[in-house]
Amino acid sequence: MTDHWRRAENIVSRIDQLAAISEDPSYITRRYGTDAAVKAGNMVLEWMRIAGLQARVDAIGNIRGRWLSDDINARTLVIASHIDTVVNAGRWDGPLGVLVGLDLLECIISTGMKLPFHIELIAFSDEEGVRFHTTYLGSKVVTGSFERELLDRRDAEGVRLSDAVRAIGGDPSGLGGEGIPAGQWLGYFEIHIEQGPVLYEKNIPVAPVKAIAGQVRAEVIFKGMAGHAGTVPMDQRQDALCGAAEFILAAETLAGGGGSISVASDSGLVATVGKLQIVNAASNVIPGEVVCSVDIRGGDESVLSRGHEKLRLLSENIGLRRGLDVEWKVVQVSSPVECDVSMTALLGRCVAAAGYEVLELVSGAGHDAVPVSAVSPVCMLFVRCYKGISHNPQENVEMGDLAATLMVGDKFIHQLSEIWKYPH
Amino acid sequence: MTDHWRRAENIVSRIDQLAAISEDPSYITRRYGTDAAVKAGNMVLEWMRIAGLQARVDAIGNIRGRWLSDDINARTLVIASHIDTVVNAGRWDGPLGVLVGLDLLECIISTGMKLPFHIELIAFSDEEGVRFHTTYLGSKVVTGSFERELLDRRDAEGVRLSDAVRAIGGDPSGLGGEGIPAGQWLGYFEIHIEQGPVLYEKNIPVAPVKAIAGQVRAEVIFKGMAGHAGTVPMDQRQDALCGAAEFILAAETLAGGGGSISVASDSGLVATVGKLQIVNAASNVIPGEVVCSVDIRGGDESVLSRGHEKLRLLSENIGLRRGLDVEWKVVQVSSPVECDVSMTALLGRCVAAAGYEVLELVSGAGHDAVPVSAVSPVCMLFVRCYKGISHNPQENVEMGDLAATLMVGDKFIHQLSEIWKYPH
Repeated sequence: MTDHWRRAENIVSRIDQLAAISEDPSYITRRYGTDAAVKAGNMVLEWMRIAGLQARVDAIGNIRGRWLSDDINARTLVIASHIDTVVNAGRWDGPLGVLVGLDLLECIISTGMKLPFHIELIAFSDEEGVRFHTTYLGSKVVTGSFERELLDRRDAEGVRLSDAVRAIGGDPSGLGGEGIPAGQWLGYFEIHIEQGPVLYEKNIPVAPVKAIAGQVRAEVIFKGMAGHAGTVPMDQRQDALCGAAEFILAAETLAGGGGSISVASDSGLVATVGKLQIVNAASNVIPGEVVCSVDIRGGDESVLSRGHEKLRLLSENIGLRRGLDVEWKVVQVSSPVECDVSMTALLGRCVAAAGYEVLELVSGAGHDAVPVSAVSPVCMLFVRCYKGISHNPQENVEMGDLAATLMVGDKFIHQLSEIWKYPH
Repeated sequence: MTDHWRRAENIVSRIDQLAAISEDPSYITRRYGTDAAVKAGNMVLEWMRIAGLQARVDAIGNIRGRWLSDDINARTLVIASHIDTVVNAGRWDGPLGVLVGLDLLECIISTGMKLPFHIELIAFSDEEGVRFHTTYLGSKVVTGSFERELLDRRDAEGVRLSDAVRAIGGDPSGLGGEGIPAGQWLGYFEIHIEQGPVLYEKNIPVAPVKAIAGQVRAEVIFKGMAGHAGTVPMDQRQDALCGAAEFILAAETLAGGGGSISVASDSGLVATVGKLQIVNAASNVIPGEVVCSVDIRGGDESVLSRGHEKLRLLSENIGLRRGLDVEWKVVQVSSPVECDVSMTALLGRCVAAAGYEVLELVSGAGHDAVPVSAVSPVCMLFVRCYKGISHNPQENVEMGDLAATLMVGDKFIHQLSEIWKYPH
């Protein structure tokens, strides 16, 4: 444990060094293609080289370091996460996975451990997508799924992505050659903070992720009749806000929230109305039109699509009963990603062997594992973060949980190595 | 009926002449102290003089025409409404009452009818309060309740009310002398469009008003915990919007709305949430704070204050159950005004005598009768308007309903005259 603790302290030191690199000195922000992002990438590149990896910057700005097996035909285990951040970010979201991966490799190298697979450690250059309003730029290039039309996207200052790629020394025309061919992947392993409160509430340091939730985003419009708040009797109103209020509570109940004992409470769905606008709102006017968002997520594809359909029907019923027109506009649908069952089970056994309760989580947030899942088995290990807070300077991981992560990570690499020693 | 119809046509012609006077040629707007308001006032002044009234403009710009009884010590019946408008107004809100009053007087004068009371017809210069954000300027002067500190109020251009009064030839220092002493009032009679849909829905042309609703306006703040819409499980959320949604429906139910069969449905309360703002709203963020308005109105003081208290307690309970902080800020409280029981009953008998169903209404909107009620018995007659639409160019009154109004008005003056012939 003492060794894991010392390694954890080293990781925290590196986390702090990366956190000191920012577009703005008063908080952490490293958006894709900025000087801060390049500087952070170069720091990781240098660490990889010192560790003994064959390290380079690829055409989109990912930092990639390879450690080769003696078996030249071996497959590659990719260990990765991202080092770009949101605006006013925490220090752990992304860098944790890269630096734990680096530490696991340093441990392998320093102990002279032989592996039946190559390992490629990758620090993705863009996962958050803050600057160009697109996510997973880095991992899409590595999986060969990068859409070239994205190169024409412009940031808030009008800079094209293609020019941003060139500005950091990248090569838009070379992106197609940077993918790891599907047949060469052994698997993908990403360590990430949970960004939610489950591990914090249950007092567990780490947990395997069984799925990354799919998401339905819709805009729901309720149209009734505006009127004078004093002169229209209650039974003659078509109050769009009252309809929206019923809908908000229906969404909550569908997902098992609101303190209600609901059959749906273990559905694994979450549903949120995060935006609501009353058109021409005034305190003395009955709302005539309300536009709200709804965000439904779940780890199971059929549960998610049935939940979506049920909520849409509920909104229609509310409209019929209240004399409101209801419009339901689907904004985005993404399918859930199932993590690889055997790698996830192996992670679980390593968590148990390290002495912790095994709780398989569904990730409500997206991760680079999503695009990678198209070409490789993926697994993820979530690490407890303080109160589940993320995308916030208060984001924090305890030293003890980092040490636990390293124990699990060491065991995982070791077990995977044992499994792959024998021909598949 | 033919005579009433002809008189109704004459009123519509005058309504149209007033509607043609506006600050803006493309819609009707006559705010206090503007050239349009002065021009409209002068038109009414001229009509009063032609009718044979002793007419003048008072110190705040009210147009006041007196018809004197032979009994020099008689009391005064005031018939009044306003001729200022909101921005982009209809043509009936205000002018209807002034022009029906003028017509009733013309009828009295032309038939040589003797009255045991004086009549003063007043066209109030400011009821809507659009320009200086204050209501009832005109009637406050007539009732002696004008607050002199209002003279320092400024409009959007920075013009002081005192200067606006001077600009139209008024006299800020003379306002105190314009009040009709309390002992001289016989009563106050205001004819006004309903501005609500009850008469339209029930197919009744006119109705006495039994009370003008009191109003409680409050701002209600729900504070929970913002969080990631994907990663926070439903049972760990403190969603401020879900709390607000429960509150919106509780307010609706309290007042008997929402299609629910509620014991409160005949409480005479109406309750409306007209504004709602989510602080830092985003579709993928659980709302951490919601600020909403609530507007509760009712004709019965104790029902209104009990409704207010009940709703405040409901909001507290919602907060307790959901782990939300709830703040309740009272913005404004005004008491209901009871119309004079005997004058209102007399109006009802006149409505019945004219052949219509008698339905006593509560006015959800405020009227000049509110300040007048402090010094005089007041009564009001509501006239049906198209679909209850008001403060809108679509505002309309049918010719037949105008004729009905005149029938009821004639009878009312005649009956009141009979009653006051005998000493009180």
